[in-house]
Amino acid sequence: MAFSAQAAQAGAGSSVSTALPPSRDLGLLLSRRDVRFLLYEWLNVERLGDRARYSGQSRADFDDVLALAERIAEEQFAPHNRSADANEPRLGEDGRVILVPEVKPALQAFAEAGLIGTSMDSAVGGMQLPHVVSAAAMAWFHAANVGSASYVMLTIGAANLLLANGSADQVATWVAPMVEGRFFGTMSLSETQAGSSLGDIATRAEPQDDGSYRLFGTKMWISGGEHELSENIVHLVLARIAGAPPGTRGISLFIVPRFLLDERGEVGPRNDVVLAGLNHKMGYRGTVNTVLGFGEGAHLPGGQPGAVGYLVGEPHKGLSYMFHMMNEARISVGLGATALGYTAYRKALKYARERSQGRPVVARNVAAPQVPIIEHSDVKRMLLAQKSYVEGALALELYCAHLVDEQLCADSQQQRDSIGLLLELLTPIAKSWPSQWCLAANWLAIQVHGGYGYAREYDVEQHYRDNRLNAIHEGTMGIQALDLLGRKVAMNDGAALGLLAERIAACVQHAALAGGEAAELGSRLQLACTRLIEVTAQLWAPLDAQLALANATVYLEAFGHVVVAWIWLEQFLTAADHEEPFYQGKRQAARFFFSYELPRTGPQFDLLASLDRTSLDMRDSWF
Amino acid sequence: MAFSAQAAQAGAGSSVSTALPPSRDLGLLLSRRDVRFLLYEWLNVERLGDRARYSGQSRADFDDVLALAERIAEEQFAPHNRSADANEPRLGEDGRVILVPEVKPALQAFAEAGLIGTSMDSAVGGMQLPHVVSAAAMAWFHAANVGSASYVMLTIGAANLLLANGSADQVATWVAPMVEGRFFGTMSLSETQAGSSLGDIATRAEPQDDGSYRLFGTKMWISGGEHELSENIVHLVLARIAGAPPGTRGISLFIVPRFLLDERGEVGPRNDVVLAGLNHKMGYRGTVNTVLGFGEGAHLPGGQPGAVGYLVGEPHKGLSYMFHMMNEARISVGLGATALGYTAYRKALKYARERSQGRPVVARNVAAPQVPIIEHSDVKRMLLAQKSYVEGALALELYCAHLVDEQLCADSQQQRDSIGLLLELLTPIAKSWPSQWCLAANWLAIQVHGGYGYAREYDVEQHYRDNRLNAIHEGTMGIQALDLLGRKVAMNDGAALGLLAERIAACVQHAALAGGEAAELGSRLQLACTRLIEVTAQLWAPLDAQLALANATVYLEAFGHVVVAWIWLEQFLTAADHEEPFYQGKRQAARFFFSYELPRTGPQFDLLASLDRTSLDMRDSWF
Repeated sequence: MAFSAQAAQAGAGSSVSTALPPSRDLGLLLSRRDVRFLLYEWLNVERLGDRARYSGQSRADFDDVLALAERIAEEQFAPHNRSADANEPRLGEDGRVILVPEVKPALQAFAEAGLIGTSMDSAVGGMQLPHVVSAAAMAWFHAANVGSASYVMLTIGAANLLLANGSADQVATWVAPMVEGRFFGTMSLSETQAGSSLGDIATRAEPQDDGSYRLFGTKMWISGGEHELSENIVHLVLARIAGAPPGTRGISLFIVPRFLLDERGEVGPRNDVVLAGLNHKMGYRGTVNTVLGFGEGAHLPGGQPGAVGYLVGEPHKGLSYMFHMMNEARISVGLGATALGYTAYRKALKYARERSQGRPVVARNVAAPQVPIIEHSDVKRMLLAQKSYVEGALALELYCAHLVDEQLCADSQQQRDSIGLLLELLTPIAKSWPSQWCLAANWLAIQVHGGYGYAREYDVEQHYRDNRLNAIHEGTMGIQALDLLGRKVAMNDGAALGLLAERIAACVQHAALAGGEAAELGSRLQLACTRLIEVTAQLWAPLDAQLALANATVYLEAFGHVVVAWIWLEQFLTAADHEEPFYQGKRQAARFFFSYELPRTGPQFDLLASLDRTSLDMRDSWF
Repeated sequence: MAFSAQAAQAGAGSSVSTALPPSRDLGLLLSRRDVRFLLYEWLNVERLGDRARYSGQSRADFDDVLALAERIAEEQFAPHNRSADANEPRLGEDGRVILVPEVKPALQAFAEAGLIGTSMDSAVGGMQLPHVVSAAAMAWFHAANVGSASYVMLTIGAANLLLANGSADQVATWVAPMVEGRFFGTMSLSETQAGSSLGDIATRAEPQDDGSYRLFGTKMWISGGEHELSENIVHLVLARIAGAPPGTRGISLFIVPRFLLDERGEVGPRNDVVLAGLNHKMGYRGTVNTVLGFGEGAHLPGGQPGAVGYLVGEPHKGLSYMFHMMNEARISVGLGATALGYTAYRKALKYARERSQGRPVVARNVAAPQVPIIEHSDVKRMLLAQKSYVEGALALELYCAHLVDEQLCADSQQQRDSIGLLLELLTPIAKSWPSQWCLAANWLAIQVHGGYGYAREYDVEQHYRDNRLNAIHEGTMGIQALDLLGRKVAMNDGAALGLLAERIAACVQHAALAGGEAAELGSRLQLACTRLIEVTAQLWAPLDAQLALANATVYLEAFGHVVVAWIWLEQFLTAADHEEPFYQGKRQAARFFFSYELPRTGPQFDLLASLDRTSLDMRDSWF
């Protein structure tokens, strides 16, 4: 309980180097050792320094930005994680959104350190570091304070969307101040009647003589939609230009700023965008979540109704631009889910080492002192499960981020296309697997804490609440499942799945060469992978899309476990031949995943192969 | 959001029949139809009216109390569920605990309706109804408002503990006012250093010349430990009499009232029990949760330090008395978990019928209207999963409550012992299975709601938070697992498991006679049951307790799924030969459980049979 007061005190200063009072959180966000293992021992990220895009960059450069991220996350983000949760955004009497005071200096510190542009081109003011390094750096912020981190994550996403699809003028006008942290961004997609079904959005855009548009409509669930954290907010809004075709092919993307800019790019009068309400959630409470009204006649610029918006790219292509960025957003969600699972695991581990309770089951001396609970087999099982989920997930996310780098550095278009396909295939897994299993890790972290884990005095219950969002936003589990089974495995005649199978086969071959236990794990992975490919073929053989997709979520889950088993075998092989405890732990976690987790896929594949109709045939009236 | 205001208004009156404004909650707590099916079509509860204890009771009597419970739950408990969560107990300036005002009249209505004594003997003012009917009645309150229901559940538990173990004087003095709802009870077991390890409690009791005791110590996590809801609070406290042996065999049970009584039994001066602090939790926020100090010198009665306590039964037998009541408490926790899963399922079902989003996967007409999401196969899958969990769990809990009645009405001591053994065996399942799977149902209920499910405007996120406690209190999952595998299946040379196998075999035989699909499900159940028995024997064969118990929680999970598959086959058979939608739904949910759920046990049994050492061999330094 003392923590909150300390945290409030600590966060009050805006300087990064403010000395912090001791807190049980420090050093418990991620494992520096694990991040180094994944980047340098497994992915050999230093090699990227040989490629043109990252020419001259070295491990020292990467380590510098990782240390910087860790320090700011620890010093500026973690200390107000709990107070931002307990004091969620509210409306002041003047209609402004009030956040806890620590948020703004934390975000300033983030921006001043240049972290918004970590992976962006140096031409736009970025550091142009590899995406895999950027992802590792961002993971610290997700772990420290996902609510505050959201503001900069959204801004990075919006900036990247404009970098990929905006005009040079738009980049200069809007992206440059975003990279500096002066403007923040939002993704304004959902509407009340259009959540999973984005093709049904109704916000309309009316073209004006000067080439701009006026927008009218209401957007729901907009994170960071209104606040006083930045000079301006750049809403990226999906809307339908009058006369556009129905569905997803008639949606365009617009820049709609909170404040209009004058000729010199200075912030001017308010645009016709109003805060229509705040949403209150179970978690992620530090991120203001809003209902926004566009074109309701407030703050009328020039007396003419409608929110002024600027078309990005071509008309009717907005959703494709947005989906182009979905890979990034979905990997970011997966990374966030991972980080929340990761920090809770580390807290549970610390607790299990410090908390004494009970005695070994074989010891009957009731007068003997109690033992730390980490000595109980069931607690070790719960910690190993968490380790296998969160370290498996972090490795998966970094692997995907590394694919982005591979793609950017590819030698040929063919290679670029191949890597792109594989990344497309893995994206629903990178999004959904940590959302499910790192939440399961949070459940276990609470369980290790016992009653204390359920109390708000400890952090893990908040991580559990925060993490529950990740299976919903940026496409629910069901949407990811349809994307994977209905689109990704089928595209290019199954080319993407073939590429994955090749990478898995290479890993299995490597394991076979290593022999012994590695070879044995490899053959189990190969069996699972073969089964996955067979079942995929069986599902698509009948050409009954409804039946094939009826259990798409079961397919998503089984697919994810096969992928993560592969990622664990990769780690097992990397850790082979080292006797230090860290490597022993890596190997034991891999064994755990192969013994306790991979076998779950057996019944899932059986169900899928049977083309089970139980769910499909269920009727509304039978419930 | 309007709901809270309505609820506050509605709950302000204390009369049960106050007309309620419409709320989205009404009619969504449990399914009356399902409860009737389980009680009358499956368990044939009316037959209990033929036994001496329930002589003359009829279905009409049972229905009356169920209707009464439903009405009070709907009208007095449900309306303030959310406001009690949002306004958790706090300390007033005078040191008193402040709750939302609706709690007290709700509990009064409950007590005035005689519901505290639903299953208690008429000799002590109870209704002496079957336990299975009482459990069904209580389920409505858990579903409506688990935070407020806790106060009466704890009181019922404390009263039953005293009825079983207290002297006639103690029953007259303390139980009678509890049945009337004038005194409430607590279970004061845990201490900071003694949670799962109750043998380590340190609170000490010093004998006095007058036969009473003075207690000194601090108790942690005491629900209902301090409030102004009742004239008095009867704390049932575990403590160690000076000179008692160490461990569980040296713990005694005491009555320690908040207020001492005068000779006429009227409430007198305060006892030396003080509120040392309030705990703040993720859920269950309506139940005040306290740290209590005994013998700290406050409110000194007669100037002599120590909290006055009265020994219950014999010295050093306190824990055995408490464990005698654990069956009841654990089934009550399981019932609560079930009810939370159940009401969330019904809310998700309603939402899925009303919410339109997307179109069938085979329909490509984007201009067609959106369809209710219940038409999507993945949503049907999520609803069927919830149905199979919550209806399976409710059937399991009622089955266990019915065993209590069977035991009370047994014709011979041998029959009574057999039923007692079976109940002992099923208790860890009745406690843990709903805590795990009805929480999974809550996860799915949120998922069906999409973003709305994560918002506090809807109920399901609160049910999810509340339900998370149930895998912790009254013995964690790990404790249940050790109880099951380390004690229950081993006791009397495996007699209890034999009794379960007999009941399952009888059901399978019944299914075989029915033929067709029933026979097919029956043979799958028989295979799983046979595997369970084989694996149990394998685990105990090496006589290495540490190894046998290393994966006890995996065993608990697999065991639970076999039991619930049996409970579903029972329901399938009961529903056979009826074509109405309700019965079709029962059969489809049974099919779902056999297709999607029971097969999970295959890999679990494989792991157990392999005597996997991965968790056992893990070392602290490897994490």
